[in-house]
Amino acid sequence: MYRVTTPDTTELQNRHAGNRSSALLTDKYELTMLEAALKDGTAHRTCAFEVFTRRLPNERRYGVVAGIPRVLCAIRDFVFTEEQLAELDFLSPETIDYLRNYRFTGDIDGYREGELYFPNSPILTVRGTFAECVILETVVLSILNADSAVASAAARMVTAAAGRSIIEMGSRRTHEYAAVTAARAAYLAGFDATSNLEAAKRYGIPSTGTAAHAWTLLHTHPDGSPDEASAFRAQVEAHGQGTTLLVDTYDITQGVATAIDVAGSELGAVRIDSGDLGVVSRQVRRQLDDLGATNTKIVVSSDLDEFAIAALRSEPVDIFGVGTSVVTGSGAPTAGLVYKLVEVEGQPVSKRARGKESRGGAKGAIRIFRNTGTAIDEVTYPLGGDLPEVGDHSYVQLSIPMVRDGELVGEIPALTESRDYLAQQLVTLPWEGLALTRDEPALSVRHTT
Amino acid sequence: MYRVTTPDTTELQNRHAGNRSSALLTDKYELTMLEAALKDGTAHRTCAFEVFTRRLPNERRYGVVAGIPRVLCAIRDFVFTEEQLAELDFLSPETIDYLRNYRFTGDIDGYREGELYFPNSPILTVRGTFAECVILETVVLSILNADSAVASAAARMVTAAAGRSIIEMGSRRTHEYAAVTAARAAYLAGFDATSNLEAAKRYGIPSTGTAAHAWTLLHTHPDGSPDEASAFRAQVEAHGQGTTLLVDTYDITQGVATAIDVAGSELGAVRIDSGDLGVVSRQVRRQLDDLGATNTKIVVSSDLDEFAIAALRSEPVDIFGVGTSVVTGSGAPTAGLVYKLVEVEGQPVSKRARGKESRGGAKGAIRIFRNTGTAIDEVTYPLGGDLPEVGDHSYVQLSIPMVRDGELVGEIPALTESRDYLAQQLVTLPWEGLALTRDEPALSVRHTT
Repeated sequence: MYRVTTPDTTELQNRHAGNRSSALLTDKYELTMLEAALKDGTAHRTCAFEVFTRRLPNERRYGVVAGIPRVLCAIRDFVFTEEQLAELDFLSPETIDYLRNYRFTGDIDGYREGELYFPNSPILTVRGTFAECVILETVVLSILNADSAVASAAARMVTAAAGRSIIEMGSRRTHEYAAVTAARAAYLAGFDATSNLEAAKRYGIPSTGTAAHAWTLLHTHPDGSPDEASAFRAQVEAHGQGTTLLVDTYDITQGVATAIDVAGSELGAVRIDSGDLGVVSRQVRRQLDDLGATNTKIVVSSDLDEFAIAALRSEPVDIFGVGTSVVTGSGAPTAGLVYKLVEVEGQPVSKRARGKESRGGAKGAIRIFRNTGTAIDEVTYPLGGDLPEVGDHSYVQLSIPMVRDGELVGEIPALTESRDYLAQQLVTLPWEGLALTRDEPALSVRHTT
Repeated sequence: MYRVTTPDTTELQNRHAGNRSSALLTDKYELTMLEAALKDGTAHRTCAFEVFTRRLPNERRYGVVAGIPRVLCAIRDFVFTEEQLAELDFLSPETIDYLRNYRFTGDIDGYREGELYFPNSPILTVRGTFAECVILETVVLSILNADSAVASAAARMVTAAAGRSIIEMGSRRTHEYAAVTAARAAYLAGFDATSNLEAAKRYGIPSTGTAAHAWTLLHTHPDGSPDEASAFRAQVEAHGQGTTLLVDTYDITQGVATAIDVAGSELGAVRIDSGDLGVVSRQVRRQLDDLGATNTKIVVSSDLDEFAIAALRSEPVDIFGVGTSVVTGSGAPTAGLVYKLVEVEGQPVSKRARGKESRGGAKGAIRIFRNTGTAIDEVTYPLGGDLPEVGDHSYVQLSIPMVRDGELVGEIPALTESRDYLAQQLVTLPWEGLALTRDEPALSVRHTT
């Protein structure tokens, strides 16, 4: 499973912040707890922390694990520089010394990148001393919550697109670096390409792009009146007949006519970015066909989400361009994952606060399947202990060793490999698990302990 | 207005990505448009692009401009390295040469950091050649959309808190670097502190933090049963009586009793992170008072947003801890700002696509006030032209020069200065403008041209 490959492993050599420490991507209370623990001698108790969610946002059926390679890199890069230590003037010299020498030396087990998850799936388990585990909370959760939110929304959009091409173009609607990792998460989930050049460079994702309305508006006749034909002509001359012309700057019907007139009937595609996309795509398809441009594709964009994509399923749309909704998790901009202490010195622990109960003990999980290949449920077991009894059923071990004694075990899979893995998992869901409507999770997680 | 000060200007010397180029935080189509424009000779037409929004998300009354200093830095850092250029194999040698020598040499005018905005407010206007302006679209919008989304939500929470302290602690629920800038945007909007240490270091924001449930769970008696008292004692010993103890790991009433027993009646604060916060805060206040801990404050957290905060206004809550909702823009994770070509060679341009009309021409704006100091509306005017007639009313010029010939004009204001500026603007809104309910924007923007 975990063999060496390039795109995602470049993250390991050169993470996006430029080989910088991730150590201050941390909430202050982690370091004040560390200080108190070093003082009262509890810092070195062996602990297990677990990443899980209590519920799926918006009553979705499943979540997609994303960000695992980025988490492993962030933990490797969790090293305090002297410049950073100088900022931590609220800590004692002893705590500063501990941080100066900090390297994570524990164990990590977790779900594969691209794996499905459900409420209470033990997605990641971090084991080591209290001190070394507690200070990783924020950076681990930030990455997994951001990436899983995007991948979980994106996977639903890919399902809705039903085999048609789907492109991520939402960079402008999210933080400039969140845009880069959002492009990665969308590609993991089955998107075909991204508009984001940094994501293309960093993760080897196919990039794509056509033209903005500004391009058409830039072109005017000497009297100042619009000159769409010049804009289209220049684009075709620069990028060839296979390019995509944006036809809705002025009048769409005129735009399509001009596009084919200029580019010929072998024009690659036209893009429509406004109006009732169902109605317009039918009109444009008819017009293109009448003009002999039967191979010219139709790209639509304009605030598409999984529901809008599904609504266009019967329309002659070839490619969906998705922006805001995918990079913001389509109504669920965070995955709601938490990082909770579940075991101390081999004893399960859990809080009892109302509505926030958790199940103690370091856990692994398996997923059980019918003979038909359809998943039945997930079952947890004590991490390091025996697997649950599955009878005649087949199963997959979901929790795999990722770090031992602070060192990576095996290799990070390539992004394309994780992408294929997710696609394979999605087809194992019970058929209603891929529905877009709100409902119960597609699978439940049973605890055997 | 724009004098030299430290926190926000450190961004200029040392941006968070480590003095890296921002040039690939860009959508591919910007570079393919550039290529076509260089080929057809339109690249050097003088243009104006405007950042504005067509509507406020969720029918809010106002938006808060945030991210301006970060945008100015990103434009300064928009320089292609040879390593980046090597990735752009879809461009001609001429385009690569253009990018190799690229520096923004145009003009930028815009609204101040912390200014209010409304639909069609001309928030930022970027003028120069088509080539130099068009390629900045993505990075400008990413920053402004992310930061303004957080600041706009945060300002409503500050209003709802009605003078009580409010702390940003949402790092774990958003991308690890979006967390840092979200902390900045929340502080700009009036939050008092952040949990995020990188934000504290980079922007000089006060940082704060107490303890997690893990801290309490770590402490057990030799027989494995909970030992909350030891956890509280160790925390008080490490951080003093002024610390905040988290009292809801097991039973809140017992937790409060133990907290005061251990720390004494001068304990700084207790934190409650679950349950019905109104009911519980009243019970806890009564219990604290009965125990003589009349100065011990109550901190509440647990998925608070502006509505939950407002609902707690009559309860004995001293400090609000806000996480997910502020870093995700409380239901509006992006501000929906767009970057549109509005002028070419001095002529206004605008597209006519349905529902996406825009008003051509490079515009500035003023805000007009009654004698009482209450704002009436915003009025635009041709940038560089005469200001609109205001009669007896007073006004403020909203559009100020920020960049001339590629060079910064004046200095970036300190973050605290922008924070004060926003607070001053909020009180100028008509009284219903600060309501949390959905409605029309508090002010409208009139175009005089």
